[in-house]
Amino acid sequence: MIVEKQVFSLPQYTTRNGAVIEDLRVGWESYGTLNADRSNAVLVTHYFSGTSHAAGRYSPDDELPGYWDAIIGPGKAIDTNRYFVFSSDTLVNLNARDPMVITTGPASRNPATGKRYGMSFPVVSIEDFVAVQKALVESLGIRRLRAVVGPSMGALQTYQWAVSYPEMVERIIPVIGAAGGDPFLIAWIDMWASPIRLDPKWQGGDYPENDPPTVGLTEAFKLVILHAQQSEWARSTFGKEPAQSQRHPAQAMSHRFKIEQGLQDFAAMRAATADANNFLYIVRANQLAGADPRKVRTPTLLIYSPTDLVFPLAWIEQTAAALRENGVLADMVALEGPNGHLNGLYHIAQAGSQIAAFLSNP
Amino acid sequence: MIVEKQVFSLPQYTTRNGAVIEDLRVGWESYGTLNADRSNAVLVTHYFSGTSHAAGRYSPDDELPGYWDAIIGPGKAIDTNRYFVFSSDTLVNLNARDPMVITTGPASRNPATGKRYGMSFPVVSIEDFVAVQKALVESLGIRRLRAVVGPSMGALQTYQWAVSYPEMVERIIPVIGAAGGDPFLIAWIDMWASPIRLDPKWQGGDYPENDPPTVGLTEAFKLVILHAQQSEWARSTFGKEPAQSQRHPAQAMSHRFKIEQGLQDFAAMRAATADANNFLYIVRANQLAGADPRKVRTPTLLIYSPTDLVFPLAWIEQTAAALRENGVLADMVALEGPNGHLNGLYHIAQAGSQIAAFLSNP
Repeated sequence: MIVEKQVFSLPQYTTRNGAVIEDLRVGWESYGTLNADRSNAVLVTHYFSGTSHAAGRYSPDDELPGYWDAIIGPGKAIDTNRYFVFSSDTLVNLNARDPMVITTGPASRNPATGKRYGMSFPVVSIEDFVAVQKALVESLGIRRLRAVVGPSMGALQTYQWAVSYPEMVERIIPVIGAAGGDPFLIAWIDMWASPIRLDPKWQGGDYPENDPPTVGLTEAFKLVILHAQQSEWARSTFGKEPAQSQRHPAQAMSHRFKIEQGLQDFAAMRAATADANNFLYIVRANQLAGADPRKVRTPTLLIYSPTDLVFPLAWIEQTAAALRENGVLADMVALEGPNGHLNGLYHIAQAGSQIAAFLSNP
Repeated sequence: MIVEKQVFSLPQYTTRNGAVIEDLRVGWESYGTLNADRSNAVLVTHYFSGTSHAAGRYSPDDELPGYWDAIIGPGKAIDTNRYFVFSSDTLVNLNARDPMVITTGPASRNPATGKRYGMSFPVVSIEDFVAVQKALVESLGIRRLRAVVGPSMGALQTYQWAVSYPEMVERIIPVIGAAGGDPFLIAWIDMWASPIRLDPKWQGGDYPENDPPTVGLTEAFKLVILHAQQSEWARSTFGKEPAQSQRHPAQAMSHRFKIEQGLQDFAAMRAATADANNFLYIVRANQLAGADPRKVRTPTLLIYSPTDLVFPLAWIEQTAAALRENGVLADMVALEGPNGHLNGLYHIAQAGSQIAAFLSNP
C-alpha cells in the first residue's frame, strides 16, 4: 500500500481562544476509496509524537510502514476495501523537521513577518486539532464519519470529536486514552517539556533554525519514551547490563547502563526531525484536553492497556463508567504486552476482530 | 521527644569497589535507651531524599518532627520505651547543605586536597551505605540488631543488611521497596538526575559552592516528588486550576497550572538545602542496588503501597514470592492513601500494630 502525502490548507483559522492563524496548512494521507455517498470515511487521529502516517509506505523501499499498518489495509481490521481511511498531521506537530510532515506551529513561518513564529504562536488545544480536522472532512464533502479512531492523544481527539461534533461521528474508538483531563498527567507532561526549557540553546524559544536545543529535546523524548513503556520491556530489552562490558557503572560515574544508552540513542534519533518549541506547544494542547466523558453520546469501543502509565487503568475505568452510564460503551478490550502505554501501538492487532465488528455494525 | 545529632567517623573507609575515603563522617541520632545487653537496637534506614531525622524534634519550636514520628516514640509502634532506635545519614546524602545533616560525598572536602571532591568522589552503593552503618553499629557495641526498618531506599538497605550481614539482623521491615534491582527504575532515576546535567551551571560538577545549579536541581526534585505521588493527590490538592485565576494556560504559554506552580515551589524549597552532585551520586547508589531477595533468610514484614509508581505492585509481588519461597515472609501489609509511593511515609501508622507485633516476636 503506497500512500501519498497531501496538503490541506485554510486561508485563515481562528483558535478556540480567539487567535487568528493565517495560511494554516496540515498534511494528510488516505487509504482506500471514498464511496459515492461519502458514507465510508474513517478518520484516524494520531498520538503525541506521531504523524498522519498511520499505514502503508511512501515508497516500496520504506523500511517501516505507518504505525497502525497491522490494522489498516485491504482485508485488515479497518478494511480499506470497505472504508476510506484518512489521517491528518495535527497543528504544532512534533515532527516539524520531518520532510513528510506538514504542520503549522511555532516552527512555521508567520506570513505576516516572514519569520518563524517561535513562542509568538498562539496556544492551541485538542479542540483546535479537531476543528481543523472538521474543516478537512467538510472539504472532502463528507457529512458524517463512520468512525474516529486513534491512540493516546489520538484517543483524546476521538472524545473531543464526540463532544464537539456529535452529529458528524457515528462511533469512536479511543485507544490507550481516557477522557476529562487529569492534573497528575498535566504535571507529568510539563516534566516531559522541562529539559527543553533548561537547555541554554533554547533561548526562550528564539533559537536559530540551524542550532536548536537538541540536547534538551533528546532528554524530553527520553521521558516520553520511558513513560510510555513498562518494566517488562526494560528487563527483556536491556536488563541491568552496562552499556559497555568493560565499563560498569559501579566503577565510575561516567559509565552507563545499557538502558540509559539505548534510550539516549532512540531519543536522539527522534529529536533529529522534531522541533523543541512544537514540543512545548503540543504539551500544552494535551494539558488543555478536557472533553467530558459524561457528554459523550456516541457509541464507543474503548481499547486500553492495563499496564499503561500515561493513562492508568483507574482513569480508564472512570471514563468507562461515565460512558456506561450514558449507555454508549459498546465494549472494552484490554491489550496485553510488555510495552505499557505502547501496547496500544505495538499490539493493537489483538483488538482487530472487535474493531472490525464495531465498524461494521449498522 | 527532643533529639540530638551525633557524628560517627571512620578514619578510613574502603568502598565495595576498592576506593579509599579518608575521614568519613556521617550524622546519626537515636530515640530510647540501649539496654544492658545491647539487644534492643532497631536501626532505621532513610529514603532517597531523607536524612537520619526519623522521629522527634531538634528543639521544642521545630515545626515538624522526623518523618516517621507517627510510629517511633514512647508507646508507639516502634516503642522507644522498649527499643533503642537509631538512624544515620547515608553517604552522599542529598541534603548536604542542611545544617542538621552530616554526610561524606562530593560536596565534602577531600582531606588530601582541601577542595570539595565534586565528581572525583568515588562511586558508592547501597552496599557501602550498609557497610558504614555496620561500623556504626559495632562502635556502639551492638552485635545483633533487633530489626532494620526503612522506607524506599531505606527498604533497599534492609534487604542489603539481610544479605550482607545476616548474622547481625533478627528481622527486617522493608517499607515501599522491592529487592533485586530493576532496569526500568535504573532508567527512571537517571531521568531524575538529567535536569542537573542539563543546567549550564552544573559545569560537569565543578560549580562554585555559592553558585550551584539550583534550577536543574529543582527540576530534578520535581520529578522525584511527582514519581513518588499519585493521581488522587494531584486531584485533591491542585485539580486542573490555573496558578493564577486571571492567567489561564489556555491563553498564553507563560501561564501555568496550579499543580505546576505547587511542584515548583515545593521542589525549590527542597533544592535549597541539597547538593546537585550528591543527587547524581545517590542516584547511582540506587541504580546499583541489587540485593537478591532469594538470598534473604531473615524474617521479613513487607509493607507496601499498591498504588506505588516507584516500586510498583508487580515488583513487590515478585519480591514477596522469593521471600515466601524462603519461608521468611512473616506478613505483608498494604497501605492505603492518595499518595502512591509516599503512602509509606504519610500513612505508615496504618501498619503500626503489625510492626509492633513483629518487633516483639521472640
